[in-house]
Amino acid sequence: MSITRTITRKFSTKMTGAPDPSSTVKHLVSISHLTTPEFQSLVKRAEYHKKLIKSGKRPATFPLQGKTIALIFTKRSTRTRISTEGAAAYFGAHPMFLGKEDIQLGVNECLYDTTKVVSSMTSCIFARVNKHSDIQELCKNSSVPVVNALCDKYHPLQAICDMLTIKETFGGNVKGLKMAWIGDANNVINDMSIAAMRMGINVSIATPDGIEMATKIQDKAAEVSKETGASLELTHDPKVAAANANILVTDTFVSMGEEAQTKQKLAQFNGFQITPSLGKLAAPGWKFMHCLPRHKFEVTDEVFYGDHSIVFHEAENRLYAAIATIEALVVNKGKFIL
Amino acid sequence: MSITRTITRKFSTKMTGAPDPSSTVKHLVSISHLTTPEFQSLVKRAEYHKKLIKSGKRPATFPLQGKTIALIFTKRSTRTRISTEGAAAYFGAHPMFLGKEDIQLGVNECLYDTTKVVSSMTSCIFARVNKHSDIQELCKNSSVPVVNALCDKYHPLQAICDMLTIKETFGGNVKGLKMAWIGDANNVINDMSIAAMRMGINVSIATPDGIEMATKIQDKAAEVSKETGASLELTHDPKVAAANANILVTDTFVSMGEEAQTKQKLAQFNGFQITPSLGKLAAPGWKFMHCLPRHKFEVTDEVFYGDHSIVFHEAENRLYAAIATIEALVVNKGKFIL
Amino acid sequence: MSITRTITRKFSTKMTGAPDPSSTVKHLVSISHLTTPEFQSLVKRAEYHKKLIKSGKRPATFPLQGKTIALIFTKRSTRTRISTEGAAAYFGAHPMFLGKEDIQLGVNECLYDTTKVVSSMTSCIFARVNKHSDIQELCKNSSVPVVNALCDKYHPLQAICDMLTIKETFGGNVKGLKMAWIGDANNVINDMSIAAMRMGINVSIATPDGIEMATKIQDKAAEVSKETGASLELTHDPKVAAANANILVTDTFVSMGEEAQTKQKLAQFNGFQITPSLGKLAAPGWKFMHCLPRHKFEVTDEVFYGDHSIVFHEAENRLYAAIATIEALVVNKGKFIL
Repeated sequence: MSITRTITRKFSTKMTGAPDPSSTVKHLVSISHLTTPEFQSLVKRAEYHKKLIKSGKRPATFPLQGKTIALIFTKRSTRTRISTEGAAAYFGAHPMFLGKEDIQLGVNECLYDTTKVVSSMTSCIFARVNKHSDIQELCKNSSVPVVNALCDKYHPLQAICDMLTIKETFGGNVKGLKMAWIGDANNVINDMSIAAMRMGINVSIATPDGIEMATKIQDKAAEVSKETGASLELTHDPKVAAANANILVTDTFVSMGEEAQTKQKLAQFNGFQITPSLGKLAAPGWKFMHCLPRHKFEVTDEVFYGDHSIVFHEAENRLYAAIATIEALVVNKGKFIL
Repeated sequence: MSITRTITRKFSTKMTGAPDPSSTVKHLVSISHLTTPEFQSLVKRAEYHKKLIKSGKRPATFPLQGKTIALIFTKRSTRTRISTEGAAAYFGAHPMFLGKEDIQLGVNECLYDTTKVVSSMTSCIFARVNKHSDIQELCKNSSVPVVNALCDKYHPLQAICDMLTIKETFGGNVKGLKMAWIGDANNVINDMSIAAMRMGINVSIATPDGIEMATKIQDKAAEVSKETGASLELTHDPKVAAANANILVTDTFVSMGEEAQTKQKLAQFNGFQITPSLGKLAAPGWKFMHCLPRHKFEVTDEVFYGDHSIVFHEAENRLYAAIATIEALVVNKGKFIL
Repeated sequence: MSITRTITRKFSTKMTGAPDPSSTVKHLVSISHLTTPEFQSLVKRAEYHKKLIKSGKRPATFPLQGKTIALIFTKRSTRTRISTEGAAAYFGAHPMFLGKEDIQLGVNECLYDTTKVVSSMTSCIFARVNKHSDIQELCKNSSVPVVNALCDKYHPLQAICDMLTIKETFGGNVKGLKMAWIGDANNVINDMSIAAMRMGINVSIATPDGIEMATKIQDKAAEVSKETGASLELTHDPKVAAANANILVTDTFVSMGEEAQTKQKLAQFNGFQITPSLGKLAAPGWKFMHCLPRHKFEVTDEVFYGDHSIVFHEAENRLYAAIATIEALVVNKGKFIL
């Protein structure tokens, strides 16, 4: 595995959010916390359920009928909300959306108390919070599986969805493909890079000068590289990443909470927009991915709505990623179908 | 058919929102876009399901169990929300309410992207938006049926509900009844007039001077008149409309979004309040209808809560209208039971 | 029964919210309105369903599938919302959460109209409102069961839950236990005191000088005392209440809506905090209860998170209380399993 540069930022030295080995409840916090077979199982099961649904068939049973899955969302959401509710409903569960105006959390009640209470009356908690430490606290105190539905460090559901999308698009065997991430070293790529490498996909990441992938992710990548042979390349030049890539990916340059620094951040990302001319450096038949919502400074309309784009195919797959996750953690109580 | 006056306003010359003949997905945008048998089928099926529910029976199966119906509502709602959620649940579907605070639409994302994403993960979209053009765009880009749950031009669910209510109240054969609308030339009457004429009911519409029904609706009315023999009368005199009418109907004089002009609009509607003395001009046994919520300047308490009023019977029927719509578009995939 | 002091406040002389004997629909407004066998039945059924759920079994059928239960909540809520939605889902019903931003109530529509409409399209209404008079009006005009999910006078679901919790904790026969309430004379204790006495538990209530339990509740307590032999003691000294008590209970000192008087109210409650030293006056093995959310000035962390605390066990039981209530009022149409 080649790592061209390794300037650290953001993370503390301890790998945070790792599962508590004494707990019997299985959570999903990050792709890093899964084994390669566990992760691959989620992608396969997502594919299985997608085929079932597309064939017009319904599941023979609704194993979670009568049960409730809580969505604790402190941030606005389209895809995560719809896919989670749809996945819960697919198994017959009632998805209960708890927005920041709905419950006492943060107003009259601390996270510990809310976690104890919510987990005692539901079968699973999907949490979209700001801080990774909140996800960790949820996992520590919840008596039911917690799914990280986006925090400032990880976005595992997006990574499952993205690997399903790549698998479908490139026809099954994805080993040896090159995926280029051109953008911020954020929560999405933290999980997507490990996910891709677990599938045998070589990953090249271009971030602006001064923005580097967390060393903990780099360490995990080195570990996965030994297992699957996939490589990780870190660069500050979008052209280096795009060269001969099968997949170009980007995401917002200004994450939620950073809106005040928009001007400064956009300046930093000058030259990182995905354009048709950047696409010319990529491999023939290259595809464009984006987890949405999207802004024009990240990618031109020509690419985003063009023939290379698979962004809406990708978005739809969020549903099947959530289905596979609920199946593994709730229906099958943490046992992955390997 | 007699049309006494034909001063146009509001609509452009092209009939907007007409279904795209190349699409295989059937939407419900306006009663104008249905054939008379299709519309009558919806009323009949609403009646059928109401009888089933009132008999205490449950459906033998829940054909939409495991599936999700999205409610994209950018406006506050009581009846539309409750009836839609209830109808979805009746078929076993999970109704997912997406209010204006919930999703990225209009904040971080355009309608096109949201439509592609939401329709890819759900079985149907009920949309309550302001602009008719938004409904049109939704229909154009959605891969699943879109139901117009109120826009500035149409309100088809209310029209189905109202015809069921009239049918139940007047005992089956409603041909030749006279319905008098005394109020604004708004979205509700745009669909209700065509609906009534499709049932063979003669319609008389009194609007204040300067407010006229859209010519496109008048043209459609002329077309339906040839088919069913029902007539449309347009007047500026509430007494002309009320004369011998079997049904008096009104609605808000100040639509959502017009609140700033309340004073001016109310002045314009001076003399349009439904009162007991106006009722004296109507046919014996006349009934009062209103789609709610209601304000006193539209109708006195005496009429609204009195013996002639069928407004709560009418409101309840919103549920069965939504059930018939979901059955036709989602359960039966656009095939109407004729 | 001993009542040491009887200074009245708050309530009018007429027992309000009593069920209308002419109505065939059974509501749940207050524990005071139930008979002792009816109340005991709710606790027993809550216990039954909890055991079923804990055994990992699902109900054989979902009797409310296809039906909707409305939650009209004008106040923020965690436990009541989650338990109600979970209980509805347990029977297969769709719980429809209607927050204060969602419907026209109070903006464009009066409670009477909203009640008529909501009850015509749903199977049950759980209402969390401020004023008890709103609950009364809902009951008067609703065609379906109304459950008081907290008003300024009563909190019956909490009382069912609390008696289940005490029963489980003290092993079945709770007759003769002493329960000490140290706090405000509020909605929670109004129902909890009657509930406890219906179970044969002796109740001692310490409120600050100037705050007295409503005479109507005292009268009801006297009536229940004759039936079950349980006593009610009213005092202004927390130590008198705590002496040899098996259960110490408190609740917020500053109810929702009283936030402006926080400083003054806290001064009034000086000395009422539940502390380990107060616990030393209690009986060996005493337990601490609180309906949550909790503030530190009511109870120290040492007690709240300590070995005597059963607050999270208590919170979970809200689910089973709601299940028993829906079973009695909706599934069994007001017939209690005696």
